[in-house]
Amino acid sequence: MDFEPSQRTRELQQRVAAFVAERIAPVEARLWGELHAREHGGDWTRWTTDPEVEALKAEARAAGLWNLFLPDPELGAGLTTVEYAPLAEEMGRSFLAPEVFNCNAPDTGNMEVLHRFGTPEQQATWLTPLLEGRIRSAFCMTEPDVASSDATNMAATARVDGDEVVIDGRKWWSSGIGHPDCRLILFMGLTDPDAPRHQQHSIVLVPRDTPGVTVERMLPVFGAYDAPYGHGEVRFDGVRVPSANLIAGAGAGFFVAQGRLGPGRIHHCMRCIGAAERCLELMVERGLSREAFGKPLINLGGNRERIADLRIAIDQARLLTLHAAWKLDREGPLGALTEISAIKVVAPNVLQQAADEAIQLFGGAGVSNDVPLAAFFATARVLRIADGPDAVHRGVIARQELRRGGRRR
Amino acid sequence: MDFEPSQRTRELQQRVAAFVAERIAPVEARLWGELHAREHGGDWTRWTTDPEVEALKAEARAAGLWNLFLPDPELGAGLTTVEYAPLAEEMGRSFLAPEVFNCNAPDTGNMEVLHRFGTPEQQATWLTPLLEGRIRSAFCMTEPDVASSDATNMAATARVDGDEVVIDGRKWWSSGIGHPDCRLILFMGLTDPDAPRHQQHSIVLVPRDTPGVTVERMLPVFGAYDAPYGHGEVRFDGVRVPSANLIAGAGAGFFVAQGRLGPGRIHHCMRCIGAAERCLELMVERGLSREAFGKPLINLGGNRERIADLRIAIDQARLLTLHAAWKLDREGPLGALTEISAIKVVAPNVLQQAADEAIQLFGGAGVSNDVPLAAFFATARVLRIADGPDAVHRGVIARQELRRGGRRR
Amino acid sequence: MDFEPSQRTRELQQRVAAFVAERIAPVEARLWGELHAREHGGDWTRWTTDPEVEALKAEARAAGLWNLFLPDPELGAGLTTVEYAPLAEEMGRSFLAPEVFNCNAPDTGNMEVLHRFGTPEQQATWLTPLLEGRIRSAFCMTEPDVASSDATNMAATARVDGDEVVIDGRKWWSSGIGHPDCRLILFMGLTDPDAPRHQQHSIVLVPRDTPGVTVERMLPVFGAYDAPYGHGEVRFDGVRVPSANLIAGAGAGFFVAQGRLGPGRIHHCMRCIGAAERCLELMVERGLSREAFGKPLINLGGNRERIADLRIAIDQARLLTLHAAWKLDREGPLGALTEISAIKVVAPNVLQQAADEAIQLFGGAGVSNDVPLAAFFATARVLRIADGPDAVHRGVIARQELRRGGRRR
Amino acid sequence: MDFEPSQRTRELQQRVAAFVAERIAPVEARLWGELHAREHGGDWTRWTTDPEVEALKAEARAAGLWNLFLPDPELGAGLTTVEYAPLAEEMGRSFLAPEVFNCNAPDTGNMEVLHRFGTPEQQATWLTPLLEGRIRSAFCMTEPDVASSDATNMAATARVDGDEVVIDGRKWWSSGIGHPDCRLILFMGLTDPDAPRHQQHSIVLVPRDTPGVTVERMLPVFGAYDAPYGHGEVRFDGVRVPSANLIAGAGAGFFVAQGRLGPGRIHHCMRCIGAAERCLELMVERGLSREAFGKPLINLGGNRERIADLRIAIDQARLLTLHAAWKLDREGPLGALTEISAIKVVAPNVLQQAADEAIQLFGGAGVSNDVPLAAFFATARVLRIADGPDAVHRGVIARQELRRGGRRR
Repeated sequence: MDFEPSQRTRELQQRVAAFVAERIAPVEARLWGELHAREHGGDWTRWTTDPEVEALKAEARAAGLWNLFLPDPELGAGLTTVEYAPLAEEMGRSFLAPEVFNCNAPDTGNMEVLHRFGTPEQQATWLTPLLEGRIRSAFCMTEPDVASSDATNMAATARVDGDEVVIDGRKWWSSGIGHPDCRLILFMGLTDPDAPRHQQHSIVLVPRDTPGVTVERMLPVFGAYDAPYGHGEVRFDGVRVPSANLIAGAGAGFFVAQGRLGPGRIHHCMRCIGAAERCLELMVERGLSREAFGKPLINLGGNRERIADLRIAIDQARLLTLHAAWKLDREGPLGALTEISAIKVVAPNVLQQAADEAIQLFGGAGVSNDVPLAAFFATARVLRIADGPDAVHRGVIARQELRRGGRRR
Repeated sequence: MDFEPSQRTRELQQRVAAFVAERIAPVEARLWGELHAREHGGDWTRWTTDPEVEALKAEARAAGLWNLFLPDPELGAGLTTVEYAPLAEEMGRSFLAPEVFNCNAPDTGNMEVLHRFGTPEQQATWLTPLLEGRIRSAFCMTEPDVASSDATNMAATARVDGDEVVIDGRKWWSSGIGHPDCRLILFMGLTDPDAPRHQQHSIVLVPRDTPGVTVERMLPVFGAYDAPYGHGEVRFDGVRVPSANLIAGAGAGFFVAQGRLGPGRIHHCMRCIGAAERCLELMVERGLSREAFGKPLINLGGNRERIADLRIAIDQARLLTLHAAWKLDREGPLGALTEISAIKVVAPNVLQQAADEAIQLFGGAGVSNDVPLAAFFATARVLRIADGPDAVHRGVIARQELRRGGRRR
Repeated sequence: MDFEPSQRTRELQQRVAAFVAERIAPVEARLWGELHAREHGGDWTRWTTDPEVEALKAEARAAGLWNLFLPDPELGAGLTTVEYAPLAEEMGRSFLAPEVFNCNAPDTGNMEVLHRFGTPEQQATWLTPLLEGRIRSAFCMTEPDVASSDATNMAATARVDGDEVVIDGRKWWSSGIGHPDCRLILFMGLTDPDAPRHQQHSIVLVPRDTPGVTVERMLPVFGAYDAPYGHGEVRFDGVRVPSANLIAGAGAGFFVAQGRLGPGRIHHCMRCIGAAERCLELMVERGLSREAFGKPLINLGGNRERIADLRIAIDQARLLTLHAAWKLDREGPLGALTEISAIKVVAPNVLQQAADEAIQLFGGAGVSNDVPLAAFFATARVLRIADGPDAVHRGVIARQELRRGGRRR
Repeated sequence: MDFEPSQRTRELQQRVAAFVAERIAPVEARLWGELHAREHGGDWTRWTTDPEVEALKAEARAAGLWNLFLPDPELGAGLTTVEYAPLAEEMGRSFLAPEVFNCNAPDTGNMEVLHRFGTPEQQATWLTPLLEGRIRSAFCMTEPDVASSDATNMAATARVDGDEVVIDGRKWWSSGIGHPDCRLILFMGLTDPDAPRHQQHSIVLVPRDTPGVTVERMLPVFGAYDAPYGHGEVRFDGVRVPSANLIAGAGAGFFVAQGRLGPGRIHHCMRCIGAAERCLELMVERGLSREAFGKPLINLGGNRERIADLRIAIDQARLLTLHAAWKLDREGPLGALTEISAIKVVAPNVLQQAADEAIQLFGGAGVSNDVPLAAFFATARVLRIADGPDAVHRGVIARQELRRGGRRR
């Protein structure tokens, strides 16, 4: 048993951390100040990219800090999931970093899907520009009209009609669809209701500008629109694409989505852990520098215990996530079912707790935009729902546990 | 011991509830839809009142559902705090109701101060139009540069200079200051640093348009600006008002503020309880009407236990608050010190828990503005800081407890 | 709304408190020291009554502090449940007090059953000596072989055979059955499996010495046997009693048991609250008198916050229980279904929390018998199971809540 | 990073698990049934060893499953802490296993002290028979009269008087001192109050039968005496031993104790994790095999979520402890300060939670001795106090955290 990260990871971790601190942080600070101006009250048609962000991306790419998430050694960094995980933690300290390193959701998941399941044509058309950071993409799965925590509830359709696929229905929480460079949608829908339960759905590549695709609105998260990415509600009316746009063929939707989710959840969770570390740092800094009742805030009431409890919670969440990554690398997503569901419950909750406690120490500043705590809080709160709400993941774990009679794996 | 509310309360409670459901709810639904348009990205200079809201206020006033909070039987409804409390709960179910009934913070507290401590001139000039709902007011106490949880940290000054008071400093979280009808500021500042610890500060009436008063910006709460009320950051540069504008004379600031806070905290807490009840209703409604994995959501996992736990928590919070109100009526704010600090900790936390659980059941809709859950959540989150953060109130309770050797009162 | 207890309650509360502190406490201290000697390693056949306890009972009876729980003004004190509740709280501070005042479970519940449902003969034979404290009784309901949280699981039988009832089966957690003066068993069993679901069971009076009744062992609770009361496992083999011993006739078991449980749960919960108050007092006393790292323990870490949280939790539990008692008095056990289930969850958990926190402050002494904390802890732990485990009560509350659509009563 | 245990560990883990299940479990079941008979109501002078246990020890020793905790490859198994940790987990599933493998506290810590700091004479006299399992030992540190959580409070004395050490004072929670084979006491006391703060105390070897050593009583833990080991209160009256009995010389007490605690805490925590796994297994078994309201208990209310939460909590605790062990091996106890304090808080609390939840599912059986849940609960409860209460460890972590400005190690 060896808890030391690989030499490669340690070297990259240092470089990513330095890039975040020295290059990204100043740009992020400026953008943060322009937050509301950039959101245009949720009117996504007015959202723009920022030239400095584009320049940072070019710089990161030139420095080799690019597509680090992709296990392919040619197209990406060739890191295993457990090797990449600490880099995701570093990126999670910043809201901007994931895009700068071309490592942000949902593009990472979409690139993985194209890399693993795409035809050469699909890869040439979409994977290449995504890997180069020239375009962006969305993943349309969640629906407003059904409880999407049960994916078999999905009602939107992707019917095969000759050599075309016809798409109808309504999706929401389509993250990234507001970005000016978003060109591609991965749409998941019902193809054959009579097929076996997990072979009824398909994933289809839909160019963003296909007729019949209408972004109706952007959804706010606790009042913030996450510009220029956004979370869209999208209508598909008789949208037609060639059946060559199916990923891995009709009916392969669940199989493809399953493989997509494993690494993606590791990334999300490690970013949560990085964000939680930043909350803790901010809390300690504030607690040491402000005084009330004649003492630094940190020495009042139970504040030191809260610091200790956060340190413990964050360290536990990190180890659990790293272990899940290691197991995923060895046994695949089905072998790491319990582990991945476990981190999906733990990491966002730890971030929510860290942000909540830090807000409490910051007082009014904590809920404003003067510090990133409310934004971290919102991130955590959404992640407790996205990719399966806590309750669903607890259910997965319990089912495994009952099968094993409660015995340790 | 009798838990039955007074006949007067029960009759008013029914009428308030009906007015909220029938008259206010439809207007609120419309305004909610216009939320982002009305916020103008935080640019408060463009905020406006709404004619329908003004009409509702006139209607409420005509119906005698007006100034119910004020114990004075001539100017208000003549209700004790414990009699008014259930009405505040009804109002808390709506974001608009408190203003419609002229019962919203910080105006209620300001009116009470003017009623109890104001000179006839001060009352004629400011109390009358406030009671008539023609103008609105703000209370400037919290400061950005010091830990305001310790009120003796206050650094802004209100120096007496001959027959004038000169005001300098910076305040923030000045709620309501963005309202187009805000005409009056109650400013609290340091008058005499050499006086005994609780006689150093004064409260001064400052007309909103006095030269030297600059609202620098509105502060967002989890991304929302609470238009058209707002929470402002305000600069005071050599602002001069007549010393006749002092409330209860120089040095009386703490004494006056103390009396202001008792009933105000009861109101806040009862509104939290009303809001929590609404979260619970929404949660039950959603849980019964959506299905996943072949069952109504409410029957999955621990959801029914969550419902039970919320019912218990809400009922406990209500009883604790009603008891605090009853004690406040009998023994005044100092006699109800433990009780008021206790509810200040409990009620916002119960609302935060209720909103958080309800969000989880609603999924993506929960964090958006399609339902009021995120807004209730933000309300709760802010109230855990405002009027003394949880930790300060726990400290007050512990001090009392140690004095009594842990013995029950 | 009036939170002031009645004049009668206040007067009795003072007298009970004084009796507990002055008369009972010294005897209890002595018995506590003899705890293990008196338990005889669980060999209940060697358990004895204590002459000083008997003398205290006589003294309490002479002072009119006797049968205070019984609402009947002739036989008891004529107090309503809400009037008696604060007296139960005072008794809960001591392990001995309930018996001394002839107010301890399960005898109180058994006396109520006999008082409300007993025939004159049953009352003459059993109620009179119970009211006089000359004999004691047990209630046999829980069974080792089925999940007794679902009372319809009950498997032991009470079959009517001509003018006799024949009783067979196994019961456990029959509290009080080890007492040397225990003469009566209220046995609940299955009479007619074909009757409607809640009319299948009967309660039968079984003299303790009836042939076929065998106490097989006493069950320890966290290692303690609660001598000389005990919790027995009892076998009934073809036990025959006259059918005149049926309470309210065959099939009335559930109906009678239901009425028995309401007040009993109020008593249990109020005693928990009294015990929790005593834990808090001990904690404050210890925290102020011991030092570590140069400070009184109470000022270290989050200890003051723990004190505050306990004060809040205890006060909430008390108000919830008093309100449930008030509602039970007005609307009966079915009208107070949610309220009684709520306190049954809350009060034992608050006591468990109070004892746990106090133990932590006492260190090693806390888990020993040098202070009563471990015993209070065990009491709480058992009560979270007895009379329906937490989960069942949460289920009852949720069911009510869903029926009302989550709307407040 | 590699989470796979070493080949050696895996092989031993399997053998230990098999030995526990096949050889120890049946004996333990019998002893469990004799529990109260063997305790003699706490009269330790009547405690005896059991021949079958002695036989098991011989068998374990013959099988090479002996002294596995000792890193020395000659005298022990030559395992690092992280290699031994999974074996401690296996042993923690049983109350008897630690002694059977000669791996139980406090003997393990005492053997380590003698191994690392003992003179050849001390080792020959005491280490050899301890390693052979012929004798047992106690460690006397905690005192009844001071808050021992602050070790500098220690008041008992070990004064050097010529070539003797004179020992006076009172200790309690001296675990293992009741064992018939206990021959040796490691006594820690104040030698020089004028020395620097951490050089005032010494550890002295005191033969158990030295005149002046009086075991006054055994302390119960939630009513159980843990026979034949016991937790004693011991008086030392002018006890004289040669100064050659000092460990590492006068004033070395803290230094020696520090080194003793690191591995010991890892062992305790891993045993907690093994015990928690067993609670979870019992809970799943019970939940699947009993029915209420027409369903297996496990499917009622939030029970499945509780299973999931326990699985998550246990896995997190294990990873945190293994990581602490790994860090201890690399950087020593001072380098792993945060990590060791963190597990000391986490692992016993997880066991307490697991036992508490399992008890709740077992109902009455859970608090009795029919299943080992109450005993596991008591173990956990004591460990939250022993070797530093939770609050002290949180304080250690917070201090480290503030030094680093909240930044991750």
